[in-house]
Amino acid sequence: MEIKKRVMTSSPLNAEPPIELLRSWITPNSAFFNRNQGAIPEQPINIEDWRLHVSGQVQREVEYTFQELLQMPKITTACTFECSGNGRSLLSEKAPGNPWTIGGVANVVWGGVSLKDVLEGAGLTEGSLHVAFEGFGRPVGGSGVEFVRSIPIDKALDSTILAYEMNGEPLPNENGYPLRALPLGWYGANSVKWLNRIVVMEKPYEGYFMDKAYRIFQKGQDPKTGEVVMNIKVKAIITKPLNNEKIKRGKVLIMGAAYAGENTIDRVMLSFDNGNAWVEAQLFGPNEKYAWRQWQHLWYADIPGEYQIFAKATDSAGNQQPLEGQWNAHGYCNNGIKDHGVTVTIEK
Amino acid sequence: MEIKKRVMTSSPLNAEPPIELLRSWITPNSAFFNRNQGAIPEQPINIEDWRLHVSGQVQREVEYTFQELLQMPKITTACTFECSGNGRSLLSEKAPGNPWTIGGVANVVWGGVSLKDVLEGAGLTEGSLHVAFEGFGRPVGGSGVEFVRSIPIDKALDSTILAYEMNGEPLPNENGYPLRALPLGWYGANSVKWLNRIVVMEKPYEGYFMDKAYRIFQKGQDPKTGEVVMNIKVKAIITKPLNNEKIKRGKVLIMGAAYAGENTIDRVMLSFDNGNAWVEAQLFGPNEKYAWRQWQHLWYADIPGEYQIFAKATDSAGNQQPLEGQWNAHGYCNNGIKDHGVTVTIEK
Repeated sequence: MEIKKRVMTSSPLNAEPPIELLRSWITPNSAFFNRNQGAIPEQPINIEDWRLHVSGQVQREVEYTFQELLQMPKITTACTFECSGNGRSLLSEKAPGNPWTIGGVANVVWGGVSLKDVLEGAGLTEGSLHVAFEGFGRPVGGSGVEFVRSIPIDKALDSTILAYEMNGEPLPNENGYPLRALPLGWYGANSVKWLNRIVVMEKPYEGYFMDKAYRIFQKGQDPKTGEVVMNIKVKAIITKPLNNEKIKRGKVLIMGAAYAGENTIDRVMLSFDNGNAWVEAQLFGPNEKYAWRQWQHLWYADIPGEYQIFAKATDSAGNQQPLEGQWNAHGYCNNGIKDHGVTVTIEK
Repeated sequence: MEIKKRVMTSSPLNAEPPIELLRSWITPNSAFFNRNQGAIPEQPINIEDWRLHVSGQVQREVEYTFQELLQMPKITTACTFECSGNGRSLLSEKAPGNPWTIGGVANVVWGGVSLKDVLEGAGLTEGSLHVAFEGFGRPVGGSGVEFVRSIPIDKALDSTILAYEMNGEPLPNENGYPLRALPLGWYGANSVKWLNRIVVMEKPYEGYFMDKAYRIFQKGQDPKTGEVVMNIKVKAIITKPLNNEKIKRGKVLIMGAAYAGENTIDRVMLSFDNGNAWVEAQLFGPNEKYAWRQWQHLWYADIPGEYQIFAKATDSAGNQQPLEGQWNAHGYCNNGIKDHGVTVTIEK
C-alpha cells in the first residue's frame, strides 16, 4: 500500500499518516507513524552478530542471540502505541516540538518475549529496581547523548515485552529491527528501538531523555521535578469525518478510536453542538487489553450548517478526558476533548 | 516482506506460504494463501463504476456504490479463514485436487459491513431463504460455469460480513477487491471474491460449485447427496518445529495455532510419543471469536532420537479432532491428528 505521510522533519524522520488510515483496528506497518530522535540505521543490523546484553544489578551478566529469543515462550498482544507529543499542535497555546495532529498513534499486534523471562535469565537481586534500555549505543544527532530510558521494575516484570514482530512481520528496520522494548500501554518514548543492552539499576537512569525530555512541567520549573510520561492517558480520536470536511445532509457515519493505556475503554460519548448534549457511541471490533476500541455512530444530519463534533472517552478506572488539554512546556499528553474536536459543514 | 510461496498451479494461481509465516496471530496480507478457480482480474475493478446489486426474493432491487457501503456501520472482526482442501496432501490415501499441506489457512482482521444491513436495504420476504453470491459474472476458466455459492438465510443474517478490508488495508485485488462475501467461521469456498451481485432465493443455488464441488462424498456416491462444506472443523496445526526438522537437544519451543470455525478453542493437547501420553499446551495471544488461538509448549527434549509430535484440539462444543482424517472423494476438511503430526529428530 502506497502511503503519503505528512513529514514534519525528514532528518531525523518524523511523520504521521493520513488520518483515514486510522479507521481500521489494525494499523498496517506501512501506516505506522515515524518518531525518531536520531538517524534510522542505514542497513538492518546483522542478526548473526547481534546480541542482547543484560547487566547491572543482576546475579550474572548474560547475552542472548536472536535465535535464543525465538526459542523462548512467545507473547502476542495487541497494543496501542502513542507518541507523547501526539496532539501537540492542537493545544490552544503553541508548544515546541513536532506539530502532531492525531496521527502519532497506531494499534498493532506485537509479537515478542516477556522482559520478565529475559531478566530471570540474568537473575534479579535486591538492587534490581529499575531497568534501563539502550539502543545499540548510538549518540543521538551527534550530540554525544544516547537515547536511554529506564522503567521501574514493577512495570518491567508485570507487562513489558521485547517485541520482534509487528502485525505478523519481523520488526521493520525503521521500527527498531530486530528488537524494541515495549512497556505495554505506555507512551512511545519508553519503547527503545534497536535494543541491544539492558542495564538493571538501583535507581532511574539519569540522562537527557529521562531528566529533561519526556516530563510534564511548566515554563521556569525544573524539568526533573516534573512527572515522567508513562501510562497513556484516556483519549478518543475522530477519524471520520475529517476536520473541515464538507458532507451532504443525510446519514453520516462518525467513526474513531479510543484508548487508555493500561486501562480499558468504558464508553465514548459524542456531542454535535459544541459540548451541550451528549450521545453514546457504539464500541465495536476486537476487545483486547491495551488495544484501542473502535467506536461509531450514525448521525442524522438533516439541517445544513457548521457543526463541532466532540468525542469524550471514559476508561475502566473512571478517568475522563479534560475539556481542554493541559498545557506543559513540551506539549506532551494532550487529551483535551475540545482540542480533538472536528468541524464539519453539512451541505444541502 | 518478500515471500516465496509454494505454487501448486500458476494459472489459476494456487499457492501456500512457508509454514514459518503462520507463527503469528496476524497472517500478513502478503502471506495469505492463494486459492483461485479462475483468473485474477488483470486490473483492479474501477471503483467508480462498481456496484453491488441485490435482487431476487426481496421487496425491491437495490444497488450500492462503494461509497455507500463505507457510510454504513462498520464491522471489524478477526476471523480464521481456511480452504476446505487444506491438509489434502496429508491424507493417508491420495485425493485429487491441489496438494495443500497446512498452509491453506490464515488469520486476518477483516473490515466490512454486515450482510444483514445490506439485505435489509432491499427488504426481506417470506421467500428469502438462501443468499447467493456472484463475483462479477465471470465464467471460470472458459468453462461457461460461474463461481456462484449460496448460504442459508440464518447464516446470512447472523454472522456474514461483506469485507472490504484485510488487516487494515483495502482488500487486495487478488483477494477480491473491492468486496468479498465472508460467512464467519466457514470454509473459504463460501467466500466469493470480487463480489458484485447478491441474489436472494427460495432454495439453494444450483450449479457446479454447489452440487458437484465442495461436498463431502465417497467415490461412486452422487455428489449432491453429500454434505456441503460450511463450518470449519476443529483443528490444530504445528508451525514450529517444521516437519522433518533436526533440532539440538535441550529446551525446544513447540508452537502452533488451533481453530474451530464458529466454535472457540477449549484446549490443545500434545503428544511426543506417537499419541500415547498427552500434555496440555498453553493457549496465548488475542482471544477473539472466529479467530485462531496460538498455543505453545516448552519441550525438554533430552534424549536424542526421532519423535512424532501430535497436536489435538478440542472446541467449546466438545468436538475433538479424529485420530485420522476422514477420506472423501475431493479430500476436503482433513483435520486428522496423525495426518497433521510432525516428525523431528533430536540430535546430541
